[in-house]
Amino acid sequence: MKFSIKRSAFINELANVLRAISSKTTIQILTGLKLVATDNELILTGSNSDITIQSTLSTSNGALELIIEEPGAIVLPARFFNEIIKKLPDNKVTLEVKTGFQANIISGSAEFTVNGQDANNYPHLPEMESNENVQIAPDLLREVIDQTRIAVSKQESRPILTGIHVLLTSNQLTAIATDSHRLAQRKVTLPETVEVPADVVIPGTSMTELARMIVDQNEAIELQIAENMVLFKFGHTLFYSRLLEGNYPETSRLIPDTSTTDLEIDATTLLNAISRASLLSHEGRNNVIKLTLNPEQKLVKISGDSADVGNVEEELTFESLDGDELAISFNPDYMGDALKSFGGIKVKLAFNSPLRPFTLVPADDEVNFVQLITPVRTF
Amino acid sequence: MKFSIKRSAFINELANVLRAISSKTTIQILTGLKLVATDNELILTGSNSDITIQSTLSTSNGALELIIEEPGAIVLPARFFNEIIKKLPDNKVTLEVKTGFQANIISGSAEFTVNGQDANNYPHLPEMESNENVQIAPDLLREVIDQTRIAVSKQESRPILTGIHVLLTSNQLTAIATDSHRLAQRKVTLPETVEVPADVVIPGTSMTELARMIVDQNEAIELQIAENMVLFKFGHTLFYSRLLEGNYPETSRLIPDTSTTDLEIDATTLLNAISRASLLSHEGRNNVIKLTLNPEQKLVKISGDSADVGNVEEELTFESLDGDELAISFNPDYMGDALKSFGGIKVKLAFNSPLRPFTLVPADDEVNFVQLITPVRTF
Repeated sequence: MKFSIKRSAFINELANVLRAISSKTTIQILTGLKLVATDNELILTGSNSDITIQSTLSTSNGALELIIEEPGAIVLPARFFNEIIKKLPDNKVTLEVKTGFQANIISGSAEFTVNGQDANNYPHLPEMESNENVQIAPDLLREVIDQTRIAVSKQESRPILTGIHVLLTSNQLTAIATDSHRLAQRKVTLPETVEVPADVVIPGTSMTELARMIVDQNEAIELQIAENMVLFKFGHTLFYSRLLEGNYPETSRLIPDTSTTDLEIDATTLLNAISRASLLSHEGRNNVIKLTLNPEQKLVKISGDSADVGNVEEELTFESLDGDELAISFNPDYMGDALKSFGGIKVKLAFNSPLRPFTLVPADDEVNFVQLITPVRTF
Repeated sequence: MKFSIKRSAFINELANVLRAISSKTTIQILTGLKLVATDNELILTGSNSDITIQSTLSTSNGALELIIEEPGAIVLPARFFNEIIKKLPDNKVTLEVKTGFQANIISGSAEFTVNGQDANNYPHLPEMESNENVQIAPDLLREVIDQTRIAVSKQESRPILTGIHVLLTSNQLTAIATDSHRLAQRKVTLPETVEVPADVVIPGTSMTELARMIVDQNEAIELQIAENMVLFKFGHTLFYSRLLEGNYPETSRLIPDTSTTDLEIDATTLLNAISRASLLSHEGRNNVIKLTLNPEQKLVKISGDSADVGNVEEELTFESLDGDELAISFNPDYMGDALKSFGGIKVKLAFNSPLRPFTLVPADDEVNFVQLITPVRTF
């Protein structure tokens, strides 16, 4: 095996594949990066068994300055190899495996010999059997992920809740996450109707990593779903994630469709006040703040009280407030996460009682995106 | 106590005093920030008992927009108070202590009440008895600190070595640090002759914090030394540090004044090669790399070898190489720290034997600055 490549381009490609590689894995060979050189392609693979990322670099891509002199394969210690590539002196790097599993890395006057492993021992990727491709714009996919991942459970006690529930029906994709204290649901319309409906649960960590990777993507992301695996294709990269097994709880009836108190307010105004009040609630014993709504007095007030630490109070300006008077307490971090997911737009909050979950939706689209938060009982 | 101040200016002042305040202290009141308002000054004090920082804000400084309505004093939880000030909505903040030790903080529509403590319980600063002021330019002081602090010991086994040895004699300041594996010594000429010579050991952590604080200073720093304390004055800030007790070891005879092999090389060239080679030595069991010098072959080579991981080799370009052939092994982190302290200049390395300490000095000033490193025995 022998190839040379432009070092700066190689660094970028390595960074992508390295996202899947963890030094904490119990499967030793997965701390490695698999490099396979064919006659005209260099294929980089990294995996943590949940996520597998594969980048295929082609000799026809002039920006890479990739020249393959001899095909072959090796697994090299990923972090170490990456550090070496980043620090080499010249902008060209040559990698050669002469004998056994030792790679010779040359750049300028520096020469490293790195012990690797037999690529035949690296786990094989399962074949994807699905033929159906769903296309989704990268910005839209990132938005869906960013708006739902905040409600993914971090507790392993109910593993299914650590995933995002993704439903494909007709020309609609629905993503839902809940940690049983809050819920996020986002629907998007797909450019084409899907032939086979799908109902899968993708690990939240996979989706978060995917969202980070597609920041710079312009072209549509291709989505393929198989029995126990999902594949996202973009550019020259394949992103595989395993699916979570089990049934996702039925969530459609959790979202109330009526309300007794309605507030319309700028998301940033509310977020800033929440984030101030949470300074106090974070210091105190209970991480709870109170929202007081009085339509008659045209009053919206955030307050917090912690005997040890002190208290905080702030009146807010708002767009509109209708319905019954209400005081409701909640975890300010849940509220903060939810508000951030809207960006700087106007939002509608709909309440029923101090003990029933309340919802946040964009003021100009009440159907496709909803955040639901369960209040905290303080009496 | 009641005052108002421009929030953005207050944030900067708080940041400085907060450098001294640790949340880990065992003396509970030192987690607090002491605020004292007099008729025309607001004095902020933070301390971790090693370092005490005091900033005096004057109502005559227009940029602060400081208005003191009522003198008084209070101690407030420092980190929490700082977070509140940073997140308040308006650029004016008013602080009032009405009854007891509760501070009312108002900015725009937000109002915090924060529980504080009696300022009378805050430790008093010792009086400085010294009358002698030594002046030193802030850039020069930072250079002295940055060039010596790298050799300060991190081990508590010999507490005196965790300090920087500072000597004032005639018109010269000498700073020395050693962790017994390496030594850094820097001399600077003072603008005036000191009347009373001084010989003190200042904690390395204090000096490091001081160096960070004086980054933006333009005017000379005033240095006062008392029996068990040192004071640096700059701008409207006082920076006190306790001194370390005990005798600093005699170091003047450790620096060899002859050599058998001499290398002149660009510090950055050598640093880059060292930092590459250290990637390998960090992965292996012994963090050691080898420098091979062969004046006859005009060869300067860095190499490293670790049976488990691999090996590395790099030939370097250099300015000049004279004397005997030599191969010497050392900790690349010590060498890296030393080289960084020179910046991108030419340095002279002087060696005697594979087991005797070697020195690095600037090529254009062999007297005032020296880094000494003890090699590692590898046979």
